[in-house]
Amino acid sequence: MTTPIRFELIKTCRQTGARLGILHTPHGSFETPMFMPVGTLATVKTLSPEELKEMGAGVILSNTYHLWLRPGHDIVEEAGGLHAFMNWDRGILTDSGGFQVFSLSEFRRIEEEGVYFRNHLNGDKLFLSPEKAVEIQNALGADIIMAFDECPPYPATYEYMKQSIERTSRWAERCLKAHRRPNEQGLFGIVQGGEYEELRRQSARDLVSLDFPGYAVGGLSVGEPKEVMNRVLEFTTPLLPADKPRYLMGVGSPDSLIDGAIRGIDMFDCVLPTRIGRNGTVMTSEGRVVIKNAQYARDFSPLDPNCDCYTCRNYTRAYIRHLIKCDETFGIRLTSYHNVYFLIKLMEQVRQAIREDRLADFREEFFECYGFNKPNAKNF
Amino acid sequence: MTTPIRFELIKTCRQTGARLGILHTPHGSFETPMFMPVGTLATVKTLSPEELKEMGAGVILSNTYHLWLRPGHDIVEEAGGLHAFMNWDRGILTDSGGFQVFSLSEFRRIEEEGVYFRNHLNGDKLFLSPEKAVEIQNALGADIIMAFDECPPYPATYEYMKQSIERTSRWAERCLKAHRRPNEQGLFGIVQGGEYEELRRQSARDLVSLDFPGYAVGGLSVGEPKEVMNRVLEFTTPLLPADKPRYLMGVGSPDSLIDGAIRGIDMFDCVLPTRIGRNGTVMTSEGRVVIKNAQYARDFSPLDPNCDCYTCRNYTRAYIRHLIKCDETFGIRLTSYHNVYFLIKLMEQVRQAIREDRLADFREEFFECYGFNKPNAKNF
Ligand SMILES: [Zn+2]
Ligand SMILES: [Zn+2]
Repeated sequence: MTTPIRFELIKTCRQTGARLGILHTPHGSFETPMFMPVGTLATVKTLSPEELKEMGAGVILSNTYHLWLRPGHDIVEEAGGLHAFMNWDRGILTDSGGFQVFSLSEFRRIEEEGVYFRNHLNGDKLFLSPEKAVEIQNALGADIIMAFDECPPYPATYEYMKQSIERTSRWAERCLKAHRRPNEQGLFGIVQGGEYEELRRQSARDLVSLDFPGYAVGGLSVGEPKEVMNRVLEFTTPLLPADKPRYLMGVGSPDSLIDGAIRGIDMFDCVLPTRIGRNGTVMTSEGRVVIKNAQYARDFSPLDPNCDCYTCRNYTRAYIRHLIKCDETFGIRLTSYHNVYFLIKLMEQVRQAIREDRLADFREEFFECYGFNKPNAKNF
Repeated sequence: MTTPIRFELIKTCRQTGARLGILHTPHGSFETPMFMPVGTLATVKTLSPEELKEMGAGVILSNTYHLWLRPGHDIVEEAGGLHAFMNWDRGILTDSGGFQVFSLSEFRRIEEEGVYFRNHLNGDKLFLSPEKAVEIQNALGADIIMAFDECPPYPATYEYMKQSIERTSRWAERCLKAHRRPNEQGLFGIVQGGEYEELRRQSARDLVSLDFPGYAVGGLSVGEPKEVMNRVLEFTTPLLPADKPRYLMGVGSPDSLIDGAIRGIDMFDCVLPTRIGRNGTVMTSEGRVVIKNAQYARDFSPLDPNCDCYTCRNYTRAYIRHLIKCDETFGIRLTSYHNVYFLIKLMEQVRQAIREDRLADFREEFFECYGFNKPNAKNF
């Protein structure tokens, strides 16, 4: 079987061990480590596909659960798949729906067969299983699809977590069997196990034995301290094959992107840049800016003096503050654009630092400038 | 005094009398009849300046009243004026605030000096006069600014209207005297008089004697039947000098644009295309489409089969319906883009028809195709 997803390891940073690579997909090849903007409902909120390309976005993520409910995977399939539906000809990754089932829905009941739950829109009873999650993702047609897993809460007991990862491994095997388009879509396995090294080891061993074309590290960024996340990554990524891409799910704060890359992660996704952008918060090279604050009313400088994005080249803080305060859509277009650009460019800088074997130095410089080294620093 | 606004009459349609012209402004020259998209708060809702240029927009309108309240004309002036503030280097027209004072605010009291009222945001007491309206517009720095007028309600008695237009004429003279930047900004007078031919005549005579570089026809599209508007235009535009541009305020439905051009109007503005776009309604060559309707769920054709705009070239009704139903911002970007484009292209077609002395024929074809000839046709 030829896999549609191939990872090419270019080099390893001598200072940190971070990996520079190329992810080959049926819709183009993209350098890693990369940040994937999230387009939950087949749109990266407020942005056009052209704008995402202009920024250099390679792969975007879309949510199986949300598309299943609206407009329905059958409609997306009838449109010719997600790429055609949303006019995006680069890479797409769909998650399995597992995370949403566990975070958004009510009255869920986990059984061996799958999960019974009520949807978050109207409370309708639904059932999602490994087979169903793969069926939906086959219909959506993303380049990378994800195995259906349980996302246990944080914290969870060792006993609960052990049962959970064993079921997730059995579900992973069922996902592989259910996968109808293995030559067009790469199915990734998801390593779970919380903060328990032994369980991460067990989960990784199970999944690696199934030979997925890529692996995600799941169950992180669910409320645990950053140190826990970093420690888990440190003992988990070495358990994964070097020739397969590694994807850290749901992580998008600038410090975590750098710290994840240092621990061997190749792919990240997060709603953070668009979500905080809608509230008027932007990430800049000099730290967070909350643009609604009165201090920016007459600030005719760009959001970030070191950014050359469309927003920063053409608009001032004063103008963007005005738009955001007036609930003008163009304001959140401008902040969302800048924030997504900021993370995509951050990953370019990370890749350049890996090339130059100086990612630890880059981390120090970036953290100092952003303010992460200050006491009580905010994490985005 | 050299006026910064000059109108060049190119030709008159032999079939209708409609005028083809060029409006010269300090920020470029643009063909008329033209439609001006509205950017109330220094942004044409959801759209970027680049998108407006791509569509061929020449002049946009912004609202003095709204900018006075938010962010304040002093901030816009400090930013270098409205063009710099909003990153728009083509023409801008600001209204006088009169319309908003009379339509949005409460407890207004009209005196000879000006109008006392409470603003629509927080109820603060405010006062707007001819001098103040011009002062704000001088600070905003638009290419075309408007005299402060009273917009009487529809219907109004002859007696009320007569008093009102006489005051509006006195206010117009005060506006001219207060105007501090006559070499950079053209101040237009506004002809009022409701449906009373004698009062329109009196108002036009007063204003023309003051020799404005352009004239608006105000007090229409305020609830009166279309036939009344057309009749008023028929007897009003001949009262205005042929070598000055004529602007019909607040009109943007496709039928009224054509009917206004036929009656000698050169400029139009309206929030219609962006406002209905936000609700998911679009204008197409074949009539109105309410995209939320279930019939479009699996409709993979463009909004308008005869449109070559960005939206219609790249997206289907099914996708746009999905976005609008999910309250996704990109959906209202797409519908707003199409609607504004539709009216700008309609005016291109109108100009072409004038060139070919066949605007009456074009009107018939367009009305037939759009459905305006049907009984009980919706007016947009
Ligand atoms: Zn920027
Ligand atoms: Zn279109």
